[in-house]
Amino acid sequence: MIDPRFYALLGPVPVSALAGGAEVRGAGHTGLTGVAALSDAGSDDLAYFDGKGALPPTRAGVLILRPQNAAQAQEGATVIVAAQPRAHFARVAGRIAVERRFQSDGVFVSPEARIEAGVSLAPGVVIGPGAQIGADAEIGPHAVIGPGVAIGRRTRIGPGASVVCALVGDDVIIHAGARIGQTGFGVAGDAGGAVDVPHFGRAIVQDGVSIGAGSTVDRGLFGDTVIAEGAKIDNLCQIAHNVVIGRGAVIAAFGGISGSTRVGDGVMMGGRVGIADHRTIGKGAMLAAGSAVMHDVPAGETWAGYPAKPVRQWLRETAWLSRAIGKRDGD
Amino acid sequence: MIDPRFYALLGPVPVSALAGGAEVRGAGHTGLTGVAALSDAGSDDLAYFDGKGALPPTRAGVLILRPQNAAQAQEGATVIVAAQPRAHFARVAGRIAVERRFQSDGVFVSPEARIEAGVSLAPGVVIGPGAQIGADAEIGPHAVIGPGVAIGRRTRIGPGASVVCALVGDDVIIHAGARIGQTGFGVAGDAGGAVDVPHFGRAIVQDGVSIGAGSTVDRGLFGDTVIAEGAKIDNLCQIAHNVVIGRGAVIAAFGGISGSTRVGDGVMMGGRVGIADHRTIGKGAMLAAGSAVMHDVPAGETWAGYPAKPVRQWLRETAWLSRAIGKRDGD
Amino acid sequence: MIDPRFYALLGPVPVSALAGGAEVRGAGHTGLTGVAALSDAGSDDLAYFDGKGALPPTRAGVLILRPQNAAQAQEGATVIVAAQPRAHFARVAGRIAVERRFQSDGVFVSPEARIEAGVSLAPGVVIGPGAQIGADAEIGPHAVIGPGVAIGRRTRIGPGASVVCALVGDDVIIHAGARIGQTGFGVAGDAGGAVDVPHFGRAIVQDGVSIGAGSTVDRGLFGDTVIAEGAKIDNLCQIAHNVVIGRGAVIAAFGGISGSTRVGDGVMMGGRVGIADHRTIGKGAMLAAGSAVMHDVPAGETWAGYPAKPVRQWLRETAWLSRAIGKRDGD
Repeated sequence: MIDPRFYALLGPVPVSALAGGAEVRGAGHTGLTGVAALSDAGSDDLAYFDGKGALPPTRAGVLILRPQNAAQAQEGATVIVAAQPRAHFARVAGRIAVERRFQSDGVFVSPEARIEAGVSLAPGVVIGPGAQIGADAEIGPHAVIGPGVAIGRRTRIGPGASVVCALVGDDVIIHAGARIGQTGFGVAGDAGGAVDVPHFGRAIVQDGVSIGAGSTVDRGLFGDTVIAEGAKIDNLCQIAHNVVIGRGAVIAAFGGISGSTRVGDGVMMGGRVGIADHRTIGKGAMLAAGSAVMHDVPAGETWAGYPAKPVRQWLRETAWLSRAIGKRDGD
Repeated sequence: MIDPRFYALLGPVPVSALAGGAEVRGAGHTGLTGVAALSDAGSDDLAYFDGKGALPPTRAGVLILRPQNAAQAQEGATVIVAAQPRAHFARVAGRIAVERRFQSDGVFVSPEARIEAGVSLAPGVVIGPGAQIGADAEIGPHAVIGPGVAIGRRTRIGPGASVVCALVGDDVIIHAGARIGQTGFGVAGDAGGAVDVPHFGRAIVQDGVSIGAGSTVDRGLFGDTVIAEGAKIDNLCQIAHNVVIGRGAVIAAFGGISGSTRVGDGVMMGGRVGIADHRTIGKGAMLAAGSAVMHDVPAGETWAGYPAKPVRQWLRETAWLSRAIGKRDGD
Repeated sequence: MIDPRFYALLGPVPVSALAGGAEVRGAGHTGLTGVAALSDAGSDDLAYFDGKGALPPTRAGVLILRPQNAAQAQEGATVIVAAQPRAHFARVAGRIAVERRFQSDGVFVSPEARIEAGVSLAPGVVIGPGAQIGADAEIGPHAVIGPGVAIGRRTRIGPGASVVCALVGDDVIIHAGARIGQTGFGVAGDAGGAVDVPHFGRAIVQDGVSIGAGSTVDRGLFGDTVIAEGAKIDNLCQIAHNVVIGRGAVIAAFGGISGSTRVGDGVMMGGRVGIADHRTIGKGAMLAAGSAVMHDVPAGETWAGYPAKPVRQWLRETAWLSRAIGKRDGD
């Protein structure tokens, strides 16, 4: 499941190298070659379950589980027992796969990158090994294109922007200083303190997308963050890991979409709209400037406010409050 | 009207090259050399009208108009009839003028730039052809100065900042990673999908201005975005296309000013203030932290809230609501 | 008090060089070598008092004071009398100390930097004189490490990030485009107009901290901005000068902490939380997404809203308002 263009797979790794002093139950496993989300993991993958309740079905070869879930693993699986499975995963996953590095020989454009015809490279462009730049693309000064990244045809990358662990389509514009594909924000904690959860996914930026200056699009934890065809994102927006932005969606400045939220096709968001994580904004919905969206929004509806609610209700509340005060002043 | 320091004019262009299958009415025109806003366009300019109602007076030589406006063009004008004039404009304007490119020969500081005495260039600085750097300016590492850009005397540009299509005055500070002069956020749509509206204006940063780290100032669509003398802008602010920030105005972090809004001289804005587009904030007004300003604000007034209103009213509403709840709890 | 790794001390400077036409009272002073906050200044330091009321105790050798405070200086001190002491300070402090500059000889990695074993430098890295990079650190493409900066072991700096006037611990992650250690936002004004207050402090980023893409951490005015051990900061956050972020605090995207505010250990902040300046957020407090915090928050409490208040009160108000409107609709 891990895209080898972006990650170096270090395996096979024995379970013993991942236990870190924790109890291991089961036969052990000597050939771990990947990491994956619980639902996608296979027999040679490491996965973890940190949720409440019973362990969901999984085919992961090695599982990091809480003591109360340890007996729920399928037959044949090996279990690493940890009080905080996510933190344990965060500490050891890097022994199986790591983000590919840029060249360290001082050469700006790797000879192992493939540059198609008509590409314009401004001064200072850095391109990592295995990257591909499509025909007639324009890469701005000091832009950074990571190892294995694909940039589509006629796509323009602005000054100082960086793109790693990402596939970028044709006719895309990524403006100055935008940051695409870096690790998202995931913090796990255990007795050893806080640890950043490593990311093994990608950022997918489809054809015709625009991303504004200074905006950030984190890559998926597992799987992908997706900005679908023709979506337009203004300056200083933040798109968290595993978000999906629908086709033709428009997000004005300071838009912030939290992890794993799905924004439907054609959604229109005014400036400074925030959406909580794991929410769904239905197709064609409109979110007024400044909305703080805590709930799912049905397709086609217009919401506003903090917390956001259907705009008519918000307008009634706002107007009513003003009138109520006005009356009291007149008492 | 287009500043040739920043844009290469590709004309003269015949109308036939801009029709893209659309109906053309009138004599045709073989010598288009510019693009302009409707009100400023001359006989050799391409302009469009996308508004409701009747076509305003214009002297544009070639107009892109909706069918219902096509008969309203002045005598002698050529009309391209399009269902979505703005989108049509966005698709073809680049055949008349395009942003000048950086050198692609790998040379960081163009020999066609003019660097005055006493300038300090840190490692990695990129300067495009035709740029001018004033005496005693300090340009930080990996800063990018675009083709034709003028940087004033004693001005300091921070690490990794970029400045394109801009004129920057004396004694300015542009902090690390700030992004000045890139294309603003304009989306047009037609049957062919969404398209970014190209920008042909400039960003003007007058003497004594400071712009914080990571802030973005988009250039004008036509005409200029202006940050007037002595205005001070904090980190991570967004100034959209065609905004005018008045002299000595102060904008704290996360300030966001939408397109074409005018912020008066001496206006003070607390952190995270947003202002809708096409608004006017009067001279000396104060906007409290977190305000979301949807309306014009008269000179000298203090506003707060979401939506923003005069601060006394906002305070009354806030206090009254707290009291009302307190009473109910005591029922 | 000024860290000579980051600032060049230009003294000794005579008072006459700092008066700029203002009245000087007292013996004069020929050996000024530093600048400092009033409370920390010594006999060879320049300090200023701009507050209301009486001059607090200070041992500063030279003081910039309003006329009404001029007689309050301790015996032996020299006083520069200015209508706007902070602005006067801002205009002259740079004659005593200035930020060290990057090399201007075009060499990307200063030979005067110390790079420990196992460090990975991607293409385009700029490192200033006197900087130290700890063993096994990874510095991304086009990252900028300022003069005198220390980067700890195993610390990773993302593409295009910049770090100046800062000490960064071990196992830190600074993501792409983050901006650490630049001058904070301080504006002083007098008859000569607005002037940026120069900064003479540092940014301290302790072990195990993560700072997200595009985030900004300004250095102290005097003294330090501190991000304590294990704090985790998401993308596009702004940490102002002299802020202290406690150990293990978590700040989600668009968090904004104004100057001199103290965020306690283990505080959890949802997305887009803003905190006013000079506030204290107690240990373990939680601030809901979107909160605009104007007051101190006691340890362990959960607050929400604009303006922020205890979350139960905010929920009551929000729910009550919805019900009140609902009833009226049913009238």
